[in-house]
Amino acid sequence: MTLFQIIDFIGTVSFAASGALAGVRKQLDLYGICFLAIVTAIGGGTTRDVMLGHVPPFAFTEISYFLLSIATAIVVFTFQTQMTRTYTKLVWMDAVGLGLFNVTGLTIALSSGVGYFGSIVFGVITCTVGGMMRDVIIGETPFVLKQEIYATACIISGVVFCLMHYLGVNMQINMMASAVLLFAIRMVTYKFRVHMPSV
Amino acid sequence: MTLFQIIDFIGTVSFAASGALAGVRKQLDLYGICFLAIVTAIGGGTTRDVMLGHVPPFAFTEISYFLLSIATAIVVFTFQTQMTRTYTKLVWMDAVGLGLFNVTGLTIALSSGVGYFGSIVFGVITCTVGGMMRDVIIGETPFVLKQEIYATACIISGVVFCLMHYLGVNMQINMMASAVLLFAIRMVTYKFRVHMPSV
Amino acid sequence: MTLFQIIDFIGTVSFAASGALAGVRKQLDLYGICFLAIVTAIGGGTTRDVMLGHVPPFAFTEISYFLLSIATAIVVFTFQTQMTRTYTKLVWMDAVGLGLFNVTGLTIALSSGVGYFGSIVFGVITCTVGGMMRDVIIGETPFVLKQEIYATACIISGVVFCLMHYLGVNMQINMMASAVLLFAIRMVTYKFRVHMPSV
Repeated sequence: MTLFQIIDFIGTVSFAASGALAGVRKQLDLYGICFLAIVTAIGGGTTRDVMLGHVPPFAFTEISYFLLSIATAIVVFTFQTQMTRTYTKLVWMDAVGLGLFNVTGLTIALSSGVGYFGSIVFGVITCTVGGMMRDVIIGETPFVLKQEIYATACIISGVVFCLMHYLGVNMQINMMASAVLLFAIRMVTYKFRVHMPSV
Repeated sequence: MTLFQIIDFIGTVSFAASGALAGVRKQLDLYGICFLAIVTAIGGGTTRDVMLGHVPPFAFTEISYFLLSIATAIVVFTFQTQMTRTYTKLVWMDAVGLGLFNVTGLTIALSSGVGYFGSIVFGVITCTVGGMMRDVIIGETPFVLKQEIYATACIISGVVFCLMHYLGVNMQINMMASAVLLFAIRMVTYKFRVHMPSV
Repeated sequence: MTLFQIIDFIGTVSFAASGALAGVRKQLDLYGICFLAIVTAIGGGTTRDVMLGHVPPFAFTEISYFLLSIATAIVVFTFQTQMTRTYTKLVWMDAVGLGLFNVTGLTIALSSGVGYFGSIVFGVITCTVGGMMRDVIIGETPFVLKQEIYATACIISGVVFCLMHYLGVNMQINMMASAVLLFAIRMVTYKFRVHMPSV
């Protein structure tokens, strides 16, 4: 198992867990909890793939994301009472995955010919649309639109990625650096309760 | 008119009627009621088609689904006071259509190369996404995520369909048998108030 | 700058402003306000493009719509207290853009081979889906489904456009006439508080 796969695994589990926990909180049944876990984990990447014409979307041919999301949902459903205190752990795991998902979205979009600006947007779509679907489906205002530095961290990391790409930095190094940067921004701003300006 | 077309007709009318009734309940205007009827009837198949790259989606080239949905919406709007007691009849009609919609989704997905697992998911998408759009648009938690055996019945029927496909059973017989199985599961679990486990 | 571009500019700004104002009302942060402005401005055209297989969608290769939406959002965010009395002005600007967006949707759909009926639907999708996304994301029943003559004005204008297209009227004249007609229907029905029938 490569480092890349381990990070992908951690990120997918944390996204799926946040979906499953939302389903538990909303008192959905087991199907609903699995559905929310899957949508949260693969909703962003699927939206990106469909908008770029990569069909069927990755998660429908590489089914390990589905299986991992369902397994996560069942664990959350079974041990729900013990799960409520894991929120901070989830934020950390989520931030680890976030860095990878963002550079994955950036790389796929760049190779699909949408340019730097569009690629940054597709990085954000990959990272945030799954969670927005989760929140809209359970009737809540999407978390990402109102607090913490989440999408903005993706944008900053995306800008740095594109800059390094433009300067010809080695792709592997660029992806690694941009992912670590995103992780750092997310955790530091989370720790110090930094928010975007609001009304 | 073939048996296939009659079942398709019954299913489309029942999906459209559930959308129109939701619109009436939410006090939408005539456009809103027609819109909800259309989205409920064709939302699942349209999502499937777009995700598999079959564009324009079937309902935009074969307009009878639009016309049937609009006609259903106008009937519901006109006779709304008499409609409130038809819920159980709708559940039956819905279950008839469900079996067909599921095998249609399965067949299209299989021939698009997503394999057995992905095809079962696209059967569920075909059957449930229209109703989920209806519920999310009117601000309710999607019915399918919290009670009764609906998506799960699609999954069971999909597994049986794929198993028979793998064993080389005649396609016509397989579709018929899987559709009848779905109808049976849905109506028996509805009648005896079987639910998925929940919190 | 052509007349076409000026109208496109006015329409995009008015759509983005309605999204940004909804974000301010819902107390989103600056990212959320920008996001809602973008989704409202490009959501309809993006949905149309993806459903017709035109990927990446126009707004992801022609980034001026993104930049214009973000600029509008920042202006609304900065001058929000002065903005509350501009609603009627926004309705006028919106109606100007509406006529253009509808004929754009009609023209693209016609040339994608969905026929007259499908093209009228894609005109409506272009004009209304962005606003519906805005409303669903902030948890409100979509405005377009419950009051005023909005989608219906698009449909009437679309029918007239298709009729003139069928009769061989010059395309430029047809687009201009259909856009003006839509503007007229929208403003007259708004002024005289005409609504669709409802429950």
